[in-house]
Amino acid sequence: MAGNSFGTLFRLTTFGESHGTAIGGVIDGCPAGLQLDLDDVQHQLSRRRPGQSSITTERKEEDRLEILSGVFEGKTTGTPLAFMIRNKDHRSEDYDQLSKVFRPSHADYTWKEKFGIRDHRGGGRASARETAARVAAGAIAAQFLAQAGILSQAYVSAVHNVSLPDGAILEMDSIDDFESRCPHPPTHQKILTAIEKAKEEKDSLGGTIECRIAGLPVGLGEPVFDKLHAVLGHAFFSINAVKAVEFGSGVLAARMKGSEHNDEFEGDGKTIRTKTNFSGGVQGGLSNGEMLEARITFKPVATIGKTQNTVDESGHAVELSASGRHDPCVLPRAVPIVEAMANLVVLDMLLLSANNRLSL
Amino acid sequence: MAGNSFGTLFRLTTFGESHGTAIGGVIDGCPAGLQLDLDDVQHQLSRRRPGQSSITTERKEEDRLEILSGVFEGKTTGTPLAFMIRNKDHRSEDYDQLSKVFRPSHADYTWKEKFGIRDHRGGGRASARETAARVAAGAIAAQFLAQAGILSQAYVSAVHNVSLPDGAILEMDSIDDFESRCPHPPTHQKILTAIEKAKEEKDSLGGTIECRIAGLPVGLGEPVFDKLHAVLGHAFFSINAVKAVEFGSGVLAARMKGSEHNDEFEGDGKTIRTKTNFSGGVQGGLSNGEMLEARITFKPVATIGKTQNTVDESGHAVELSASGRHDPCVLPRAVPIVEAMANLVVLDMLLLSANNRLSL
Amino acid sequence: MAGNSFGTLFRLTTFGESHGTAIGGVIDGCPAGLQLDLDDVQHQLSRRRPGQSSITTERKEEDRLEILSGVFEGKTTGTPLAFMIRNKDHRSEDYDQLSKVFRPSHADYTWKEKFGIRDHRGGGRASARETAARVAAGAIAAQFLAQAGILSQAYVSAVHNVSLPDGAILEMDSIDDFESRCPHPPTHQKILTAIEKAKEEKDSLGGTIECRIAGLPVGLGEPVFDKLHAVLGHAFFSINAVKAVEFGSGVLAARMKGSEHNDEFEGDGKTIRTKTNFSGGVQGGLSNGEMLEARITFKPVATIGKTQNTVDESGHAVELSASGRHDPCVLPRAVPIVEAMANLVVLDMLLLSANNRLSL
Amino acid sequence: MAGNSFGTLFRLTTFGESHGTAIGGVIDGCPAGLQLDLDDVQHQLSRRRPGQSSITTERKEEDRLEILSGVFEGKTTGTPLAFMIRNKDHRSEDYDQLSKVFRPSHADYTWKEKFGIRDHRGGGRASARETAARVAAGAIAAQFLAQAGILSQAYVSAVHNVSLPDGAILEMDSIDDFESRCPHPPTHQKILTAIEKAKEEKDSLGGTIECRIAGLPVGLGEPVFDKLHAVLGHAFFSINAVKAVEFGSGVLAARMKGSEHNDEFEGDGKTIRTKTNFSGGVQGGLSNGEMLEARITFKPVATIGKTQNTVDESGHAVELSASGRHDPCVLPRAVPIVEAMANLVVLDMLLLSANNRLSL
Repeated sequence: MAGNSFGTLFRLTTFGESHGTAIGGVIDGCPAGLQLDLDDVQHQLSRRRPGQSSITTERKEEDRLEILSGVFEGKTTGTPLAFMIRNKDHRSEDYDQLSKVFRPSHADYTWKEKFGIRDHRGGGRASARETAARVAAGAIAAQFLAQAGILSQAYVSAVHNVSLPDGAILEMDSIDDFESRCPHPPTHQKILTAIEKAKEEKDSLGGTIECRIAGLPVGLGEPVFDKLHAVLGHAFFSINAVKAVEFGSGVLAARMKGSEHNDEFEGDGKTIRTKTNFSGGVQGGLSNGEMLEARITFKPVATIGKTQNTVDESGHAVELSASGRHDPCVLPRAVPIVEAMANLVVLDMLLLSANNRLSL
Repeated sequence: MAGNSFGTLFRLTTFGESHGTAIGGVIDGCPAGLQLDLDDVQHQLSRRRPGQSSITTERKEEDRLEILSGVFEGKTTGTPLAFMIRNKDHRSEDYDQLSKVFRPSHADYTWKEKFGIRDHRGGGRASARETAARVAAGAIAAQFLAQAGILSQAYVSAVHNVSLPDGAILEMDSIDDFESRCPHPPTHQKILTAIEKAKEEKDSLGGTIECRIAGLPVGLGEPVFDKLHAVLGHAFFSINAVKAVEFGSGVLAARMKGSEHNDEFEGDGKTIRTKTNFSGGVQGGLSNGEMLEARITFKPVATIGKTQNTVDESGHAVELSASGRHDPCVLPRAVPIVEAMANLVVLDMLLLSANNRLSL
Repeated sequence: MAGNSFGTLFRLTTFGESHGTAIGGVIDGCPAGLQLDLDDVQHQLSRRRPGQSSITTERKEEDRLEILSGVFEGKTTGTPLAFMIRNKDHRSEDYDQLSKVFRPSHADYTWKEKFGIRDHRGGGRASARETAARVAAGAIAAQFLAQAGILSQAYVSAVHNVSLPDGAILEMDSIDDFESRCPHPPTHQKILTAIEKAKEEKDSLGGTIECRIAGLPVGLGEPVFDKLHAVLGHAFFSINAVKAVEFGSGVLAARMKGSEHNDEFEGDGKTIRTKTNFSGGVQGGLSNGEMLEARITFKPVATIGKTQNTVDESGHAVELSASGRHDPCVLPRAVPIVEAMANLVVLDMLLLSANNRLSL
Repeated sequence: MAGNSFGTLFRLTTFGESHGTAIGGVIDGCPAGLQLDLDDVQHQLSRRRPGQSSITTERKEEDRLEILSGVFEGKTTGTPLAFMIRNKDHRSEDYDQLSKVFRPSHADYTWKEKFGIRDHRGGGRASARETAARVAAGAIAAQFLAQAGILSQAYVSAVHNVSLPDGAILEMDSIDDFESRCPHPPTHQKILTAIEKAKEEKDSLGGTIECRIAGLPVGLGEPVFDKLHAVLGHAFFSINAVKAVEFGSGVLAARMKGSEHNDEFEGDGKTIRTKTNFSGGVQGGLSNGEMLEARITFKPVATIGKTQNTVDESGHAVELSASGRHDPCVLPRAVPIVEAMANLVVLDMLLLSANNRLSL
């Protein structure tokens, strides 16, 4: 299990390099009988697609999904659902000069040391292009989750020194109308300006995405090691460029007292709810029926146009001026990736929960 | 795989409830031939042990480790290494009044909903007492890692509104002389004072632990989903009360530019190092030979003496005044747990890396 | 996953050496809420126990089961169910002379080569004593399966040159009254005589066990690699001394034509059944609602009293006269082990089948 | 893990239906740096290919392999190696009449009951066409194993009532010159005649394949549950139509005495060998350095031209005259499948054995 699979019962294996023949994935464990909406899957891919706006990389990929197996007359059959996306607009020649150079804060050096060989073109397998396969699989997972009333939604909450103000009202229904995927018009405008400025300066910017999962039943998650948020944490950290993951109160919990942080229960003899949600929807590692709330911090993308000092494969100092197309800020395109990983985790946990109690 | 196992090749399965017969674990995949230092394992347990100082819970457990299998004439044999710790000082009667009440921000409600039954005594399996098994297994892992020159060290860096100052010189060699496990005399004193005050107020405090792993070879971690820090993130979030995990720059990455965050490489034709370490020792999901740096935020422990509003199992409002013994701040005792999880992850990754390249 | 765990959702990990402190196991994935009948578990252990009759080894172990976790007020809680059996009557000194000798057809040589170290006392972990843990876990699985109307039953069908005659009527309800566990009085008598003769001759005998699983729903098994009989085959071959596994027609299928072997379906518009059962209850890797039928061949036990030629650890020829207590024929004691492995497989498959179809 | 993956460290996931877009697979855990001989992989596929001789099905598939990822400049990169084979000559219309009928001893009924939906065209995913993906992956595994001096070779040893005579000298080097893949001219001729007769009679024949694995180091296999032959048994039983698996003495062990069956060791102080090989190369679940010998029995293929009684999906009796193209005897084409599964198991075990002993 060399790390290219994720999930226990709804299990995704992805494959493919940035400039190879194709990228794709195989889902094993898809329950049978779901009428798949492939247009929606394609739509989710378009949200992650490069070249979708002026603030994303100029690589043009239509990311056309081809289903190879597991669907019959429009429905899932319970057999492996394999899919692929052929790579088209790869300008591998842009990367020729990089074949012997280790770019700062990229995977070049570590992968070469690990495997002794690397496909340097476009970052090879370490490229975030791999996440297209996750978005496709996550979109399929979302269709199962919709049947159970579960919905994951993510949005950009901060880029560099611009953040959503407290109490901002979000226009989640039209989030895709905002190139920044920050669905708050004034903040969106500031983010857009910041990204455009970074693009001009041949630099890149970090930021934060918030993810909310609504509709979770009580009790998802597998104690002890596979707590719901532990597996979500695993999932989010597996996305390129993520440096921090928080749930509920997150880093602020360090400065709180128990009497402040505890979420008191309220009940009327019918439903049980908490007054506050510092727990972020998870208690004892299991969902508690409140909104699951996560915050994910992305570093500024490592590919920048500015000249940098680095070394070549023989370990000698060289100067590097980046080529290759890239995003000045990955946050807007990362929103569907975060949602996809959330969906993969939650569906797997939902399937695992089928056997919590004796019901033979 | 209902979540009580961790690791692929060095795989720990833990068992046991807080007030049950015993807690313990089985390690499958222990390489044969290691001369085990059981005194050291016992020493690590004593670092996590309740009742070790005036600022920890008063439960008295000597946590005496019994090895059940897998060791012959002092050496590991390659067979499962099972161990257990009998529970002794459990005052289950303290919990009688809690058998029908859901404590705020505890696992009571979610576990009952999941399984339909719960061992309410001392929190049952959801109790952090389970982590003793992790500490024992992590201490064994550490003995393997020591052979490879790898050392994990954690310390408390902040409690409530006391934090280590920038540039503080740490006395890591004598960390256990500080009840706070913050090895910086002035900060230690402030933390001690804060915890004692919280104890008096029947309240609890959150805080932050930093973990450093030295001596990692380049290339540990399994792309794509099992990036080194993704699995570490999973491991740390599986520890009770953790709300945030950061690597390197962490949440600060959101406010940085690529030109600031990128860790430029330096080389003399022999060794390759980075000038800075915003990456926290991981690039492209693999260790890069620099110090691995993680920061883990713990919420204030949910058990407090103050009166709280909550509900009983029938969902009706009740008032709760906590009983049961507890820690006003779990940070000092969590230090060996963080180290244990780090050791379990790193050893597993080291064993997995044996087959990176063709060497048959 | 070094091979000491079995199962995906109902997952057993066993530990322990023949002459170590204890043997035992941990079951992860036990659904919550089952009222456990521990007397029955102890009864199954007594069926496997050494010293139970004149034709089994004289080692006296009462094999008293101790539950360490996972049960509260008599019911499973969904948490890991750990148990152990302390070793008592081990005469390790009997094995002193064997510490440097490789016994023919035993695990001594191969385990020493693999691990570089071995616990030679009583065969260490390679001893069939490990199977006691399987019997305990299998007995627990059987209690879950009983709720679903599923029952596994095994019996001895042949020992050396004595076989059940065609059409023999079996007295399965009183199988434990037959020391041979061949529940057919005349055949039982012949087997008993054969085993007693082998015992006198300081030799051992092979034989065959048949296993029938009744009450399976249609569709258990996971295509493609985890076909029901493939996983059962895995399970049965993991039992010490097994050399062949057959399902339905078994080795006789080689000599048949499709027109003879095909099991024609019969139906009345309500239920679908097959006229014959050459398939042994499995078609396309999934249970088909008929009786699952397996046949398992055991070699004669390798420990014999006769003098044999062999080598010592330095590879030099030596003569060996066995010591240590042993069974002249393991078949009678292997019956509950076969049933246990069948139960472990079937329960796991039953839990896995919860998500075959969309039902969110 | 719904059964479409196999292996722990060298892990194959297959996908695809008989008449779908494509079949294929993803190998995760391929060590980096192997110069792949794709012509040889294609050659192995041609050995399994339909339509290769007068005694195999007439379906014409060239089974052209397309590598999608994981190979760079001819070498494995350590990333997932994905491949696919497009389906071409599928005459789905041949199966229209079968869309509502359950063919005897086929997967139709059980898969429909399990999933509630089935792709009836050519057997869908239950078709042995899936095994092409295994052959491709197994051929890649074989190239790794060749570096370690390990070679798996299988051959047909019996078909219906024709068997290899004792002591037959096999022409393994030219096995592919024999359409029967029984590399013994007189036996080959008899088998050929038997198969042609069955074809004329619109019937099918069962038979036996022997598999030998040479060059195994001592100690492969993972005790307790994942004994080498247990995992091989799992692998072989996962091949369509297999009803029995034997190792070494196999079913004959039942009739032997320990003094006959034990393989005495011989040694000269340098190498240790056994005089006989009733163990079939495995002792205590681990390879012992002798030839691994397995015997696999295949039932006669279920698809026959003769008229049969069966039922339709509503459970009513119908008569069935088969259509669709098929093999009168699958044994010749199954030889490369058996070798492929052997290779997948052995390579995985070899990779797992890297961490048997402390060597950090």
